Amino acid sequence: MVKARKYVVKRAFQGLPKREDFEVVESELPPISNGEILVKTEWVSVDPYQRAYNSRYPTPYDQFSFQVGVVQDSKDPRYPVGTRVVSHRGWCDYYVGTPGGTEKSLNSTYKLPDLKGLSPSLGIGAVGMPGATAYFGFLEICKPKEGETVVVTGAAGAVGSIVGQIAKIKGCRVIGFAGSDDKVQWLEKELGFDKVFNYKTVDVNKALKEAAPNGVDCYFDNVGGEISSIIIKNMNTYGRVSVCGSISAYNEDALEGPKASILQPSIVFKELKLEGFIVSRWIDRWPEAFADLTKWILSGQLKTREHVTDGFDNIYDAFIGMLAGENTGKAIVRI
Amino acid sequence: MVKARKYVVKRAFQGLPKREDFEVVESELPPISNGEILVKTEWVSVDPYQRAYNSRYPTPYDQFSFQVGVVQDSKDPRYPVGTRVVSHRGWCDYYVGTPGGTEKSLNSTYKLPDLKGLSPSLGIGAVGMPGATAYFGFLEICKPKEGETVVVTGAAGAVGSIVGQIAKIKGCRVIGFAGSDDKVQWLEKELGFDKVFNYKTVDVNKALKEAAPNGVDCYFDNVGGEISSIIIKNMNTYGRVSVCGSISAYNEDALEGPKASILQPSIVFKELKLEGFIVSRWIDRWPEAFADLTKWILSGQLKTREHVTDGFDNIYDAFIGMLAGENTGKAIVRI
Repeated sequence: MVKARKYVVKRAFQGLPKREDFEVVESELPPISNGEILVKTEWVSVDPYQRAYNSRYPTPYDQFSFQVGVVQDSKDPRYPVGTRVVSHRGWCDYYVGTPGGTEKSLNSTYKLPDLKGLSPSLGIGAVGMPGATAYFGFLEICKPKEGETVVVTGAAGAVGSIVGQIAKIKGCRVIGFAGSDDKVQWLEKELGFDKVFNYKTVDVNKALKEAAPNGVDCYFDNVGGEISSIIIKNMNTYGRVSVCGSISAYNEDALEGPKASILQPSIVFKELKLEGFIVSRWIDRWPEAFADLTKWILSGQLKTREHVTDGFDNIYDAFIGMLAGENTGKAIVRI
Repeated sequence: MVKARKYVVKRAFQGLPKREDFEVVESELPPISNGEILVKTEWVSVDPYQRAYNSRYPTPYDQFSFQVGVVQDSKDPRYPVGTRVVSHRGWCDYYVGTPGGTEKSLNSTYKLPDLKGLSPSLGIGAVGMPGATAYFGFLEICKPKEGETVVVTGAAGAVGSIVGQIAKIKGCRVIGFAGSDDKVQWLEKELGFDKVFNYKTVDVNKALKEAAPNGVDCYFDNVGGEISSIIIKNMNTYGRVSVCGSISAYNEDALEGPKASILQPSIVFKELKLEGFIVSRWIDRWPEAFADLTKWILSGQLKTREHVTDGFDNIYDAFIGMLAGENTGKAIVRI
């Protein structure tokens, strides 16, 4: 018998999620049946969508998230003991699951991609859902061309930091917006962004006009709100906007959400295309992204950084810290 | 010698255009040279884009607009005296021009399409730029499927009234928003919209939830602003938004434009696609639209209505009336 713990959301979030919205539930896992595996969690992910999707699920629900674990016991010969698996089983320390034969659903459990010696934690970061989000969300929707100017908000986050580096790999000029001077330094000095601004301390419109005097061709929007309206006003004809998230609004009331300068005049006069996406749309193709991302990391073209919190008991704090922008790079928790 | 008059914009508009922003300039036209034609204007168009594009041109400039006229004198054998031509020569009563050999530029002069006996004024309305705008902007960007639910704002305008009828022809359910009860009556009773609301007197969100209980698949946006934010919040996964105009914002300061609830959360979670366009993008294909539109008008599937103002001296009033939404159908001026 294995004792397992998991975070259950027992109350819908109001504004910023509160510690009391969660309950840690302990239980004894049953012995595994045919086709099942017992997994011990190694790494758990905290991501903005865990806030944003809260209203979609009736409480109580088990807090979902991507996580990496190791098979401890197996009645599925394809997943022998010691196999590392990625699943969407969330904030728990052990679970019993049935691995998916395919990777076609977010609810499937799949083998950690071959990371060629890199940390298994990348399976919930640069070579996991966030990596696929950056890869497909940028390449498929922005369709960047060499020499174009790309703007990324949330640039120091798990997704944004990868988008900017992919844009550099594709020969674009990359301008980022992030929320602290340390993040700005990291993105400019270590990741090779052409120009990064601390959006909290600059005049975004002025900064953009200086850094992108010829206008913006592609915008990868992680944040929504007024900064996005300003960036979109600076776009060139036929510019493309990939709308990945709107973290600036996630803790606001969904119905009476925040207001910002309207986008329609820019959309019309510049003939812009905006498209939102959820990365599961391309789930059949994730392995394609994982192969490229792994190759770029190994060649040094793509740098990854993890913001690690230790301990199952600290997942809530890690989550709130990520929502407050405390992380540089991918926020994860070591269990 | 022909005496000609034209409206010149001598001062950039601030807010609502003022009569003093225009000057009527009289001149004697020179005799025509080889390749030129002398045209007497019959119909002049007043459209929202004449407000919106004001900031693009340094003053003074001749007020542009589409217009229909008759060739009075010709040194181009392809355009003999009596030929009706459509041009973008604007608010004037006579002009000398060089007809374009093609229709590839907004600045070209082209022969009025074969309207099969319909009023030549349709050449600046349902079988002119506004018709092409409705046709391509809706069909190419919304890509409507039979049975889908389509919402149109500015539904009683030159473009909106045609979009809704094309949507009906394509087998969609059509919901409109317009600015008076008379317009609502006309759209529901005469044009066959499934449901139309006076946006000034209803709770848009509530009205929409009742009229489109299964959500909105396509939205043709003529207005921008809060009503568009509400409609976009009611869209279904993979919904498409054709952004044609934002008349609600045209008289506002361009930099400090109006604010509305942000669109990004809906765009992401519903994976929406929004695209703005200017109809000249499809100028090579306008004849294709004109053929279909003429066919639909002749068969009775497409009804047109014109809001006619009489007299060259009243163009300014017609323009301001159109911006205030006084027109039902296409606002035009008979010269």
